[in-house]
Amino acid sequence: MEFADVLRKRRMVRSFTDEPVAPESVERILHAAQRGPSAGYSQGVEFVVVTDDEMRHRIAGGGLGDERLKKMGMQPFVSQARVHIVICTSPELYRQRYREPDKFRLREKVSDDDLWRVPYWYTDAGCAMMLMLLAAVDEGLAAGFMGLPPAHLRGLLGIPEEYIPIGVALIGHEAPDARQYNDIGVTTPKPKRPAKDVIHRGTW
Amino acid sequence: MEFADVLRKRRMVRSFTDEPVAPESVERILHAAQRGPSAGYSQGVEFVVVTDDEMRHRIAGGGLGDERLKKMGMQPFVSQARVHIVICTSPELYRQRYREPDKFRLREKVSDDDLWRVPYWYTDAGCAMMLMLLAAVDEGLAAGFMGLPPAHLRGLLGIPEEYIPIGVALIGHEAPDARQYNDIGVTTPKPKRPAKDVIHRGTW
Repeated sequence: MEFADVLRKRRMVRSFTDEPVAPESVERILHAAQRGPSAGYSQGVEFVVVTDDEMRHRIAGGGLGDERLKKMGMQPFVSQARVHIVICTSPELYRQRYREPDKFRLREKVSDDDLWRVPYWYTDAGCAMMLMLLAAVDEGLAAGFMGLPPAHLRGLLGIPEEYIPIGVALIGHEAPDARQYNDIGVTTPKPKRPAKDVIHRGTW
Repeated sequence: MEFADVLRKRRMVRSFTDEPVAPESVERILHAAQRGPSAGYSQGVEFVVVTDDEMRHRIAGGGLGDERLKKMGMQPFVSQARVHIVICTSPELYRQRYREPDKFRLREKVSDDDLWRVPYWYTDAGCAMMLMLLAAVDEGLAAGFMGLPPAHLRGLLGIPEEYIPIGVALIGHEAPDARQYNDIGVTTPKPKRPAKDVIHRGTW
């Protein structure tokens, strides 16, 4: 698909059918995720792919929960999504990378505190998330994202303490009524901020 | 361009020619950036676009600096890039959004500390960054990214204290010798981590 079409079609989907996702689509989505940039090419972002039905329901339970979502007029979209990709990021892998010898010129000039004033493990996790959301559209699929308590995901999936699971990319086939449920659900539709408020020219 | 081609071609470029960037390309790149997701559609990510030659050199001065890069066999790629887009993110806009009435069901269940255990203002800034890097390739341009001290960018560009500038997306035309300079410069080329180490199946 043309990049411009992928970009235009992509949105957060909150209702999935139970049609399975082709394994080769999942592999291409994961391949895209691995093409994200990382500070110093630290590559500190890792993924847990979950397709098991019971585990997906247990993952969903860490959020508002299926019953609560239904009461709110929403679809239980987290458990509905046939593929969960949990995005994990390791601050320690970034710190290790910047202690390697080829980074000494940078460390001469910048203190460790200053170096990580922006925690790039989160921005890079966002890059990987974005690539997966786009790649899903390119596969003719739909995607969403759900933040869930890190401790919940760690406990269920055995994610080590040094990794922070930032949430779950939800992949599946979009239900025809997805937009309807988006509009009556947990959140009020918000207007898009005008470009002139968000984009500053020359200086703030 | 096909999404798959954009994805394949995208890499961090560290050498740009002085050919100007078409303003309509910059606008399309900014439009792409604004299509990124945000937690609760908080839309807390904003941008400062800088094309002024002197200001781009001053921005570059917050990093290792042109002279130092040259001594290291690198191109002064930050000042070379004809367009700088400084990516800024506001934790406060996220917190405000989640204090709005339609979020009360979530706040009933999740404390403010737990809600922001993952600082989504950084992951969403990463999403915007990723979209700009991809959109640049779709425009036939090249892009890079440079983290710079937030205080440096705030001071130069008048960015308010409540916004965190995470760094600068660098947009320009790739110099033919870009890869050469990538390979002899400040960092040793690192191998890509094998998929089996980064992608966990079913559980960690």
